[in-house]
Amino acid sequence: MAAPRITEVRLTPILISDAPLLNVAGVHQPYAPRLVVELITETGTAGFGETYGDSAYLELAEKLAPRLVGMPVDAVNAICRVGKDPGGLRVIDPNPDASGYRGLLTTEKQRLSVISAFEGAALDAFGKHLGVPVYDLLGGKVRDRVEYSGYLFYKWGQHPASSPNAPHDSWGEAIDPDGVVALARKFHDYGGFRSFKLKGGAFPAEEEVGAIKALRGAFPDHPLRLDPNGAWSLETSLRVARELTGVVEYLEDPTFRLDDMAEVHRQTGMTLATNMIVTATHEIKPAFDADAVQVVLSDHHFWGGLLATHDLAAICAAYGKGISMHSNTHLGISLATMTHVAATVPELRYACDTHYPWQAREDILTEPITFADGCVELSGKPGLGVEVDTDAVARLHERYVKMPHMRNRDDIAAMRAAHPDYRRPTMPKY
Amino acid sequence: MAAPRITEVRLTPILISDAPLLNVAGVHQPYAPRLVVELITETGTAGFGETYGDSAYLELAEKLAPRLVGMPVDAVNAICRVGKDPGGLRVIDPNPDASGYRGLLTTEKQRLSVISAFEGAALDAFGKHLGVPVYDLLGGKVRDRVEYSGYLFYKWGQHPASSPNAPHDSWGEAIDPDGVVALARKFHDYGGFRSFKLKGGAFPAEEEVGAIKALRGAFPDHPLRLDPNGAWSLETSLRVARELTGVVEYLEDPTFRLDDMAEVHRQTGMTLATNMIVTATHEIKPAFDADAVQVVLSDHHFWGGLLATHDLAAICAAYGKGISMHSNTHLGISLATMTHVAATVPELRYACDTHYPWQAREDILTEPITFADGCVELSGKPGLGVEVDTDAVARLHERYVKMPHMRNRDDIAAMRAAHPDYRRPTMPKY
Ligand SMILES: [Mg+2]
Ligand SMILES: [Mg+2]
Repeated sequence: MAAPRITEVRLTPILISDAPLLNVAGVHQPYAPRLVVELITETGTAGFGETYGDSAYLELAEKLAPRLVGMPVDAVNAICRVGKDPGGLRVIDPNPDASGYRGLLTTEKQRLSVISAFEGAALDAFGKHLGVPVYDLLGGKVRDRVEYSGYLFYKWGQHPASSPNAPHDSWGEAIDPDGVVALARKFHDYGGFRSFKLKGGAFPAEEEVGAIKALRGAFPDHPLRLDPNGAWSLETSLRVARELTGVVEYLEDPTFRLDDMAEVHRQTGMTLATNMIVTATHEIKPAFDADAVQVVLSDHHFWGGLLATHDLAAICAAYGKGISMHSNTHLGISLATMTHVAATVPELRYACDTHYPWQAREDILTEPITFADGCVELSGKPGLGVEVDTDAVARLHERYVKMPHMRNRDDIAAMRAAHPDYRRPTMPKY
Repeated sequence: MAAPRITEVRLTPILISDAPLLNVAGVHQPYAPRLVVELITETGTAGFGETYGDSAYLELAEKLAPRLVGMPVDAVNAICRVGKDPGGLRVIDPNPDASGYRGLLTTEKQRLSVISAFEGAALDAFGKHLGVPVYDLLGGKVRDRVEYSGYLFYKWGQHPASSPNAPHDSWGEAIDPDGVVALARKFHDYGGFRSFKLKGGAFPAEEEVGAIKALRGAFPDHPLRLDPNGAWSLETSLRVARELTGVVEYLEDPTFRLDDMAEVHRQTGMTLATNMIVTATHEIKPAFDADAVQVVLSDHHFWGGLLATHDLAAICAAYGKGISMHSNTHLGISLATMTHVAATVPELRYACDTHYPWQAREDILTEPITFADGCVELSGKPGLGVEVDTDAVARLHERYVKMPHMRNRDDIAAMRAAHPDYRRPTMPKY
């Protein structure tokens, strides 16, 4: 019995609420674009995927979606190659904006980000068709639940007064060590997280080191991480690495140059993680050769899907590198997708990152995903095991239509709403 | 609906007929041990796997098989880890005999060879349970047929007269260029092969170069390969590499030391393939760092299965290395398994190796697998898509029981049947 063919691919751009989270570039906007992919097969099964919704991604998705129509839904390896250009490393933006922190943006990376949602939707649909969870199409789970870290940000209490229609934010302000510890307590109450990551790069390194030490005091047994998104100079990175040795389980992208990352590790022995210097296959070899990174943070969106995430995990294992998962502002389809693949990667030793707690209140699933002890349980239900609330998707799409000025994530523009003279920081920032 | 659990794992050692094929160590014995794994689920579905049947593998399989009972058949990633020892690199035999040509034999490699048959049987059973081909459990096929090379050997016309109960061999003698070309013509008639590999290391390098040139003359457009299994010194390797530049698509393991392989490539630019210096995950990095190999020949048996083969392909792709597939004496379950995984590896650019034509006459499938244009077609049938003839398995098992002296493949002992004073050649042989 041949697998059913894909008859339709529906693309729905939406705007999702976001909190005023601070980072190296600026602050999150009140709304972030996201794309929901719904793939329908000839037997009427629907599969869902989620990815970046910024204009360029949406345009590419609109171009590639028709090429899926007629393909059998089981042809996941083939779907992953739709639109592949053998020379696909043309740089789109040599100065990637705040939407990414994912290294240089290339046509191939953009394609992979779109394809990841097609692949996820195909796996969801095929899993539902067969009556098996997506993890069964990836070799089966090696764990029944996947651990996530509580992903803390420095943040304002509310979006700037000048932001039109900004959503209300109930997490409160966190702009110093006490605020960060208070936020961690809220996260702990919310999801029982057993490890914490602090997004840094917003304040001078010393202040952020202070926040980490305050977290250590408040949560003596929780693994901790700090990620300034490459904000620091080599000197600052060396100083922080020495100061936080034995305090954090790893530093994430302390500095943005590969050679400096290697130097930090060489001089201090600090474990370094990245989602900035290893963001595509061709970047693996140079970074591993230089030992510039010890833990690669995969992101199934920008690596091109779940099979590609497996590939990355295998490469890391062969080269003695750890693997965990990166996250960007996302909803429950992405979280479910991450959870399925994470359940199948034997080498996963670190809790994965997720922004989901920041978005959970407004998810498009009929049942929001919950965390227990920081973990998401695999339900065993077919496909991704989640039900998409199409009314909720429609509401967030309506918002997208009503806010034509919100088409691309831009943390610098968002910062200008509070500080009109604000400019993109020169790197290294500290 | 949870996947059915495994209720039984049946292990059937068999002896399969083999032809008097010559290689660096000696000659193939009249019979080679092989292990058939039959895995039964609680819903009565049977899945089949095939692997090495030498005593040590059989013993380990008997030890590990009970640990599969009770596991859900979809838990392939977990099955692959059964018996895994974190420190599993203990060397079993620092002087691996002729059965392998797979580098140093370790406990972990032995485990992987056993597990590959368990994994294959689980994928076969799970695929049948779901009604989908095994390739669908590996991300789906990217091609409808898989190409194999015609695997030529220098050979005697018959096994030595002193070999008891030796099977009749109808392929004829091939001990010089004319014989090799005649054999290639028979292979071409048999399966339409569009590329040829010659197993070398049996005769002085100059003679084998002569055979390759004769093949080139007879088949001007067929890609050719020569594999002396590391028989040559660095000097000989350099000379052959220069002489066969532009004639072969690659040389396979001309010499057995990693540094010498790297030197051959550095000095001559010849593409080198291996199934000897990269045979396990920990050997990848040193060989790639030295650029000692440009094409890795995977073997799902000794790499630990189909998921592991995918992993290896991903690693090769990231490091700019080619991938193809190695083969050892095997039957149709192994060929079907190779074909399914090969169909799912996008990066596969070389025809795979298979010994199947040497064994096809006595396969244990109800319908032997056939080649057209050197290719095996994917049928789309559930599981591996082949039906095992249990009577045929029983007959070959009976042979195994009746020949208690045939428990391990030993090409040196086989050579002694013709030449009582024969000893393992000292390397480099030429
Ligand atoms: Mg990061
Ligand atoms: Mg070989």
